Amino acid sequence: MKELELIQRLTQSLPSNAALIQGAGDDCAILDMGIPGQWLLFKTDAVVEGVHFTTETPPEKIGRKALARCLSDFAAMAGTPVSALITLALPAEFDPERIEKIYAGMNQLAEQVKVSIAGGETTSNPSGLLISIAMVGTVSRDHCIHRSGAKLGDGIFVTGELGGSIAGHHLDFEPRLEEARWLAREFKLHCMMDLSDGLATDLRHILNATRLGAELRAQSIPISREAKLASRTGTMAKPALLAALTDGEDFELLFTLGAKEAVPLLDAWKEKFPHTRLTCIGRIQEGEGITLRDLNGVRPLTAHGYIHFNQP
Amino acid sequence: MKELELIQRLTQSLPSNAALIQGAGDDCAILDMGIPGQWLLFKTDAVVEGVHFTTETPPEKIGRKALARCLSDFAAMAGTPVSALITLALPAEFDPERIEKIYAGMNQLAEQVKVSIAGGETTSNPSGLLISIAMVGTVSRDHCIHRSGAKLGDGIFVTGELGGSIAGHHLDFEPRLEEARWLAREFKLHCMMDLSDGLATDLRHILNATRLGAELRAQSIPISREAKLASRTGTMAKPALLAALTDGEDFELLFTLGAKEAVPLLDAWKEKFPHTRLTCIGRIQEGEGITLRDLNGVRPLTAHGYIHFNQP
Repeated sequence: MKELELIQRLTQSLPSNAALIQGAGDDCAILDMGIPGQWLLFKTDAVVEGVHFTTETPPEKIGRKALARCLSDFAAMAGTPVSALITLALPAEFDPERIEKIYAGMNQLAEQVKVSIAGGETTSNPSGLLISIAMVGTVSRDHCIHRSGAKLGDGIFVTGELGGSIAGHHLDFEPRLEEARWLAREFKLHCMMDLSDGLATDLRHILNATRLGAELRAQSIPISREAKLASRTGTMAKPALLAALTDGEDFELLFTLGAKEAVPLLDAWKEKFPHTRLTCIGRIQEGEGITLRDLNGVRPLTAHGYIHFNQP
Repeated sequence: MKELELIQRLTQSLPSNAALIQGAGDDCAILDMGIPGQWLLFKTDAVVEGVHFTTETPPEKIGRKALARCLSDFAAMAGTPVSALITLALPAEFDPERIEKIYAGMNQLAEQVKVSIAGGETTSNPSGLLISIAMVGTVSRDHCIHRSGAKLGDGIFVTGELGGSIAGHHLDFEPRLEEARWLAREFKLHCMMDLSDGLATDLRHILNATRLGAELRAQSIPISREAKLASRTGTMAKPALLAALTDGEDFELLFTLGAKEAVPLLDAWKEKFPHTRLTCIGRIQEGEGITLRDLNGVRPLTAHGYIHFNQP
């Protein structure tokens, strides 16, 4: 049994109660804790040495990334993160200075977004460092945006630029908290999530919640400078468009809204966030799965990429 | 630098905000999320293979314990747990059936105490299984009991019986949720915590928050049957009283209240919870540290035990 299959089995029969508005399957869990006009958002996220960072990663950036990933999930629901607990699982031999620097990076970002760190715990972990962050926050009941809700004809939008995150963006990205709350307040978003596993994979989560498909326009995909640079490193390099479609850890917002709102949105965005791109990359259509349209026509897009037309 | 010293350094300068009522240092963090009349309680707790359970532990009991430890922290503040997120860090080669059984044990206890499991995540962990649980709940602002607040002359009370938990109690214990809420509602408790590291260690946390000491009466300590049995296994066995004072993972409630309320409390308890012991084991006094009184006199009690009078 694979991990994904196991998760599906485990999440089928989890205990519920009256406070649980939405459990597994969205960026954060949603709870009704009796806060007037608000839901409580609840999320955990772990980073592991050798998977999400290495022994070479500057420790301040490890701490920053661990917190920023969680913040990005709150952004994905147009929420406001409030407080975090930190679980540090440490190998028997750990360098206290490294841990202090991890905290320094985390604390700095927490201060910036006004999130308190309410404590946590350290425990031992023979194999290496693991940081798990639990976070609570709030979201207006009227402006909470889910992954489900995409409608036929919707425009599909992404913030920022995609691909090549491994060059540094995955350690330095700014969670789109302010942008997401502004979007949810000013426009009727139908669904939203943050891009963590790559556009081609994550857009599928939005489609799975409907019975619709999506068409992306290859020329509209905002490709990062890093993805372009990496594509020029040799004949074995990943093409830049493929990187933008499939690389993970972009931590940009992916959302849809009615086609009629597309132009007013793009105009208002340019005024409000002049230094951050917002791009309409395609639309929700009838059918299943994702197709990619370019000058040569239309072809299916899989989680791992597209099929080249001119293959021998 | 040792782990404890590192934690002290890390927790000195954590980011705060207006919502943070109490951070590190109590059984749960306390947040003001705008719930009328209530605080939000927030807690994480991790169990690790080789530390809190072994590869031989029945998997249902691993899951049950992981959740029960967290519940016990909510009991310690007279709170009501509401929802949990589960982080499973799995080695590359894991047995999916074991994981399903861990969840079965966890789910059963969650159903029993009406806590929802709102999701979580799995991540990889080369060295073995690690389960981290994040939990939120509520507590009445009027009846939230902290670790601090013990007063001179207070009686010191424990629920249940102490010591020898390793024989099975650490896997089977019932978190004292109902008892704690009843205590906080019906009596003016001055402080409370749950016993996880052993009475001699944990009582020190209560004393550190005041400038007072404590005297325990050796004959009053409620020693578990398991601690007594283990003490008879040979001349190298831990004396039963020492086990009750120093063994970890009792997960009983430790609290103090004014001496005048002691008898009414014990009477009311016997009526309400006839099958669970409640014992007054000593009192809060002037001075520092913990002393133990028995038929031979009074002697200091360290975290590791007491000094024998009749040592050569």
